[in-house]
Amino acid sequence: MIKPSKILAFDVFGTIVDWHGSIVAEVERLGLAVDPIEFASAWRSGYKPAMAKVRSGKLGWTKIDDLHRSILDDLLKSFDINSLSESQIHDLNQIWHRLNPWPDTVEGLGRLKRQSMIVTLSNGNLGLLADMAKNAALPWDLILSAEVFRHYKPDPETYLGVADIFDVSPEEVMLVAAHKDDLLAAKACGLKTAFIERPLEFGPKVIRDDLHRESFTDYHAKDLNDLATQLGC
Amino acid sequence: MIKPSKILAFDVFGTIVDWHGSIVAEVERLGLAVDPIEFASAWRSGYKPAMAKVRSGKLGWTKIDDLHRSILDDLLKSFDINSLSESQIHDLNQIWHRLNPWPDTVEGLGRLKRQSMIVTLSNGNLGLLADMAKNAALPWDLILSAEVFRHYKPDPETYLGVADIFDVSPEEVMLVAAHKDDLLAAKACGLKTAFIERPLEFGPKVIRDDLHRESFTDYHAKDLNDLATQLGC
Repeated sequence: MIKPSKILAFDVFGTIVDWHGSIVAEVERLGLAVDPIEFASAWRSGYKPAMAKVRSGKLGWTKIDDLHRSILDDLLKSFDINSLSESQIHDLNQIWHRLNPWPDTVEGLGRLKRQSMIVTLSNGNLGLLADMAKNAALPWDLILSAEVFRHYKPDPETYLGVADIFDVSPEEVMLVAAHKDDLLAAKACGLKTAFIERPLEFGPKVIRDDLHRESFTDYHAKDLNDLATQLGC
Repeated sequence: MIKPSKILAFDVFGTIVDWHGSIVAEVERLGLAVDPIEFASAWRSGYKPAMAKVRSGKLGWTKIDDLHRSILDDLLKSFDINSLSESQIHDLNQIWHRLNPWPDTVEGLGRLKRQSMIVTLSNGNLGLLADMAKNAALPWDLILSAEVFRHYKPDPETYLGVADIFDVSPEEVMLVAAHKDDLLAAKACGLKTAFIERPLEFGPKVIRDDLHRESFTDYHAKDLNDLATQLGC
């Protein structure tokens, strides 16, 4: 049996999968008359404000699939794209179910899984995360989502929810993420934290200046294989 | 990507794992001065009445782990067992996290997974199901539980909840179960149904007389490999 101190909860978008590169490739494949990099960045930028409406109570519980679609509808208007049918728009929205993993992801998770319970803690909805895992062969032990807790990260209910699911104390769970705000919120709830550098998360043109080691993270790793090595897997 | 008509939702206790044989073996291993078969049956018998209290609203939302523990505490009294420490009782209650799969389970699920999204729909809590899957190498695409829906089967919210998670209509989901009441409730919600014979679910001494084919099931299979063959996997 897995010891309760060995539960690793992973952020997904950016930490596990390359949303930027996957969307750029999809936009190029569809031949849309837009700058693919600009389009991908704009889609992702709509994400936090949309979730903030749910977190503040302005909007009732809404799945990420529906938030993505609402942002996409606005984007298609602002980018003046009229060439897509309803089913093509639906399929484009489903790209979030088919995001590609980073090169180290599958191997790294496989190593970490040998000694730990590996679970997602993502704002993505359960259906999206299940499709993504099947498509990319992500070997999760359990898929957890904001949808289970009816709260989006960084609400404390999400981090504390993981501990509750496994009936352990918060310090027996470690959040693994490429985003420092996520890790800070987890730390405030008593979780352990591991930062993963993802220099290409926003594409090759964006030079990130926030990849340095911080005092509030318990581990700092280049990628998931590096984390596995540091944890002795 | 998985077609939405190909979602298989599995009952777990009895359908996927052999709760009776696993508990009998654990009671024998512990050397408890009871009839292991009687003890296993009595523990399981407390399950439906305990859930009924939650379903009726008499008891607030309670995880199966806690219901199992409450039934176990009563059993230890009625069987007059005083030899176990608190940590031994806790560990005995955790046997539900370590139940053994039927001989066909892992191979059958592996075959069904090739063409379908395979998910649990169990009254077991998420932590229990994740431990069980890791321990028994059950290759779920997604672990769903009454805990996600805050309703126990056979409440409609559970069956309809699976369809909602994948954003499909109920007839695009098939429940696979060894229990006809579960299948009837799923059918009433519009799901497809597959019955799995589990002649040994209640131990080798109980001859089941309810294993015949019914008009309300879409498939009737000896085991999961038989179901995989019937579905062309």
